[in-house]
Amino acid sequence: MKLLVDERDLKFVLYEQLKAEDLCKYPKWEEYSKEMFDMALEQAEKLAEQEFYPTNKKGDQEGCRYENGVVKVPECFHQPYRLYCEGGWLAMADDPEVGGQGFPATVANACVEFFAAANWALLMYPGLTHGAARLLEKYGTPELQEKYMYKMFSGEWGGTMCLTEAGAGSDVGNLRTKAVPVGDGTYKIEGQKIFISSGMHDLTENIVHMVLARIEGAPKGTKGISIFLVPRLLVDDNGNLVDNDVHCAGIEHKMGIHGSSTSVLNFGENGKCIGYLMGQENKGMRIMFDMMNEARLFVGMQGQGHASAAYLHALQYAKERIQGTPVERMKDPGAERVAIINHPDVRRMLMFMKASTEGVRGLLHLTAYCIDRAEVAESEEERELYQGYVDLLIPIVKSMGSDLGFRVCETAVQVYGGYGYTSEYPVEQFLRDCKIAALYEGTNGIQALDLVGRKIAMKRGRLFKNAVKFSREMVAKFKKNYRMREMIEIYEEAAESLLQVTKFFGLKGMTDEFHVPLLYAKPYLDLFGDVAIGLNFLWQAYIADRKLQEIFADHNAKDEKAQRELLESNRSAAFYAGKIASAKFWMSQVLTQASGKARGIMLSDKSPLDIPETGFALV
Amino acid sequence: MKLLVDERDLKFVLYEQLKAEDLCKYPKWEEYSKEMFDMALEQAEKLAEQEFYPTNKKGDQEGCRYENGVVKVPECFHQPYRLYCEGGWLAMADDPEVGGQGFPATVANACVEFFAAANWALLMYPGLTHGAARLLEKYGTPELQEKYMYKMFSGEWGGTMCLTEAGAGSDVGNLRTKAVPVGDGTYKIEGQKIFISSGMHDLTENIVHMVLARIEGAPKGTKGISIFLVPRLLVDDNGNLVDNDVHCAGIEHKMGIHGSSTSVLNFGENGKCIGYLMGQENKGMRIMFDMMNEARLFVGMQGQGHASAAYLHALQYAKERIQGTPVERMKDPGAERVAIINHPDVRRMLMFMKASTEGVRGLLHLTAYCIDRAEVAESEEERELYQGYVDLLIPIVKSMGSDLGFRVCETAVQVYGGYGYTSEYPVEQFLRDCKIAALYEGTNGIQALDLVGRKIAMKRGRLFKNAVKFSREMVAKFKKNYRMREMIEIYEEAAESLLQVTKFFGLKGMTDEFHVPLLYAKPYLDLFGDVAIGLNFLWQAYIADRKLQEIFADHNAKDEKAQRELLESNRSAAFYAGKIASAKFWMSQVLTQASGKARGIMLSDKSPLDIPETGFALV
Repeated sequence: MKLLVDERDLKFVLYEQLKAEDLCKYPKWEEYSKEMFDMALEQAEKLAEQEFYPTNKKGDQEGCRYENGVVKVPECFHQPYRLYCEGGWLAMADDPEVGGQGFPATVANACVEFFAAANWALLMYPGLTHGAARLLEKYGTPELQEKYMYKMFSGEWGGTMCLTEAGAGSDVGNLRTKAVPVGDGTYKIEGQKIFISSGMHDLTENIVHMVLARIEGAPKGTKGISIFLVPRLLVDDNGNLVDNDVHCAGIEHKMGIHGSSTSVLNFGENGKCIGYLMGQENKGMRIMFDMMNEARLFVGMQGQGHASAAYLHALQYAKERIQGTPVERMKDPGAERVAIINHPDVRRMLMFMKASTEGVRGLLHLTAYCIDRAEVAESEEERELYQGYVDLLIPIVKSMGSDLGFRVCETAVQVYGGYGYTSEYPVEQFLRDCKIAALYEGTNGIQALDLVGRKIAMKRGRLFKNAVKFSREMVAKFKKNYRMREMIEIYEEAAESLLQVTKFFGLKGMTDEFHVPLLYAKPYLDLFGDVAIGLNFLWQAYIADRKLQEIFADHNAKDEKAQRELLESNRSAAFYAGKIASAKFWMSQVLTQASGKARGIMLSDKSPLDIPETGFALV
Repeated sequence: MKLLVDERDLKFVLYEQLKAEDLCKYPKWEEYSKEMFDMALEQAEKLAEQEFYPTNKKGDQEGCRYENGVVKVPECFHQPYRLYCEGGWLAMADDPEVGGQGFPATVANACVEFFAAANWALLMYPGLTHGAARLLEKYGTPELQEKYMYKMFSGEWGGTMCLTEAGAGSDVGNLRTKAVPVGDGTYKIEGQKIFISSGMHDLTENIVHMVLARIEGAPKGTKGISIFLVPRLLVDDNGNLVDNDVHCAGIEHKMGIHGSSTSVLNFGENGKCIGYLMGQENKGMRIMFDMMNEARLFVGMQGQGHASAAYLHALQYAKERIQGTPVERMKDPGAERVAIINHPDVRRMLMFMKASTEGVRGLLHLTAYCIDRAEVAESEEERELYQGYVDLLIPIVKSMGSDLGFRVCETAVQVYGGYGYTSEYPVEQFLRDCKIAALYEGTNGIQALDLVGRKIAMKRGRLFKNAVKFSREMVAKFKKNYRMREMIEIYEEAAESLLQVTKFFGLKGMTDEFHVPLLYAKPYLDLFGDVAIGLNFLWQAYIADRKLQEIFADHNAKDEKAQRELLESNRSAAFYAGKIASAKFWMSQVLTQASGKARGIMLSDKSPLDIPETGFALV
């Protein structure tokens, strides 16, 4: 039983929707083929199923242990970590020159879904390493790359991003870690970082930190932040590893992802911590922003992974768990007992999970696909177009992936009933693990501000206009299918609502009521996400309907009865019918509420801002 | 700092909205007074703050331990449990003849909110005992009452309800535990029960179980179920305690409420377990239904308790946690740092939590008030009216209390940011503890079926019609206040949507499309709950606005500026302004979506039922 990712749906997205195999027409990927993509997916699934997932629960129960400055990850994590690195998964989409496999991001991202679904706490270690290695690749000197980068891309050494401090989380500009030039081009680093994922662990001999710090005398705020490479162990000129005064002062005890080491790191306790500047002085935030898309897509994938596994586990449970009678015979005590998937309320829950999981999956892999298209764009205009899609989609997939993922996990617990609340079954862990995705890499509130305050306004609104144009062109095409009329009608109404709110925000932003878009930024992001998933479903349903009609024609199934029978026996037909059902569910249960959500936002109720603090509660 | 329940709001509900003091005009409560009610609330808060809450986290971390058939609760639970029982809280609303204090349910329920917010896992022990004791009071023989009941109402002995079996949860009619008449009026009980809250523990010497079982030869299904009193230790004729062959085979490891013992109980492993029939043979389900309202209201209170504590903790944190600059100076690195409550997105989250908590609070205490009014009704018609409100409200408060409560806890974690995910702060425990409320005492899906399949149809729809009538009368009154025009407009539209769906379900239920109301029962319940909370808020806002205008008039605050200043300095004014803000938030952010939700239901998309099982996923 494969209960991590619906591989059929994943391939539908990759090949039938995005036509990922066409990426091989670009010189960059001319040595690749659909067969190679499939092989990668197959291997990823195998490793995830056989090595990652079996350690998921154990990792949760054992957790990380901090003892005298050292952190031990769950013992069972060592083998799958080693296999993951040996398989080259860490640098799957990276340049062969740095040791990567050079796959398109689209394919690598698809593989991530398997690993994220199987054991997120474990996946974080190589995931963080990859981000740090990429930063070194883009901004490091050849010498530093030589010393550190290759061992990071291979997974031999770990890597982290060190942003957060006790007084600087969402407000990163307020950080206090300082860097003092030594004179030889290096800097002395001093300060404390908290909530550092993979900050200290025993999976690798060395860990290379990317640390945000302020060079002495630099401007206040985000404009005075620089970024430094700070290895736990320095490579000296003889190639020896030397202690660099980086210490772990403890780890957090968390609601979930127990297998992930969330560390407090002290840099330069003894005044002997050396850091190397990445890029230019005071450009740290710009560099971080540059890396942020990858990190936020990754976190969106986390929510998706938990959701996908939660859905498939709940589906399987619903098929096996016998309880209750068919609704038609509810009052007949002698009626046979059936699997709970036969109960309408359970079906509704499963359909919610199915539609949410498929909807977010579509957006996530579309985002990765746009990253690829921007990479190989044949004109600056084309590059800008695709990069614009990416920039617009990132806050949405991060926030929707984590929020909807949490909702899906919650619903999975509900399908399991009381059993779902016990650690006998895996879904309560998915729920606990998933919550963090809404918090780190910028809380979802921060994502909403990024969307409303930066992305929508960027380039005079061109990102948004391009998205609207894309939507209109696609819908014009879908309208050729008369069976989609009702769905399209609901979608167009919802898209119009989104457009109205966007214009409304634009106007408000220029008045002294600019608080309103900030106050309703998150509901706006949610509305945007609903509509984006809606378009994704129209797109998917359009394809699915055509294929389904072909199958009906091939089997000469003309009337409803014949078609129904075919659905029961033909797996392809069942898949496409299921896809259309997801689309219908999204339109009827989610997008019907779009105009109300828009109305709610545009009512512009400012009372949450206007009431005094004591008005919240007299306590 | 009192961070469990907003006592001011609780008293607003009790006295300004429900006028609970008027209950003292009824002979049943003529010896009581508002002063006595206040004293009870004050004592409840004190005990909850000083004894219950300090053991909440410890109880979570220590959990229950099962060793050789014995279950040890967290050591720290013993003292607060003893104080709770000594204070007479367990039987606060019960007849003085059985050792109760005879308070109205309205007041007792208000006290429950403090205890639920402080330590739910602990409160479950006396809570379950109370339900079992009430059952014994209503259906037991004087002899059994003499032997067991008084010690239960005093908390000296515990009590449970034993319904669930491995194959009979939601489908309780399928249970297999059997009862064989011994000949002397007693029965031999044999079977296994699971998920028994407080099933075994060391807080009390003895535990009295109420066990659903089927008498040999009884009809299949729910019509053949009887209920038995089965003490762990029997009281023999000499008053000695004798083992009754009830054994605990283990406890569940759960996501939350670790301090609550969830037990597997084996009855009659050695063929020596004696049970006493409660009420008549085969009437077990009817008796259970009779007790169910109390249990479901209690679970609604659980969600409310967690939500209330989560909200107040998040509010406090938001006032103290310094991060970021005022939005007006976002791009000024030299701007002062402010508490996060100043950020619009945080305010929106707090307002969602405030409105949800107050909305559910209103419904919960209204339900308890209706229980009281049914109890002291002066005519059968009046009794039926109030009992009807109770029956209609119960599935709604159980489901909304737990679902919205979970959402509020989730939002609290979000307000805390990454810290909220750690066990350093209490909110992640609230979130974990809260999830179970949507599952036990009938999953929320079962609540929706109860509402759609039973309550709406009951007495030819009279319960619903009475609710509509109540709503219309109230709204007619509120319309006198022109400041409420916009809120009332939104409410009336939403209420009309609910009415339409109700009629629509009524029609569908009579056709072969009766699956549709079952498929959309839960969205219907949610819509119903939204509207019910909406009415509650109109009611509350109407009162609050009148009082606020009085305060303005008293202080001669005529223009907006003077009124704003008064809100900053006058706590009463701030409270009422906050209440109106909650009402506005609910209308603008929740009820604006009612018509869309109704449309979604009435689209009657049956594809979740129509697709084949393989259409959900080809795994």
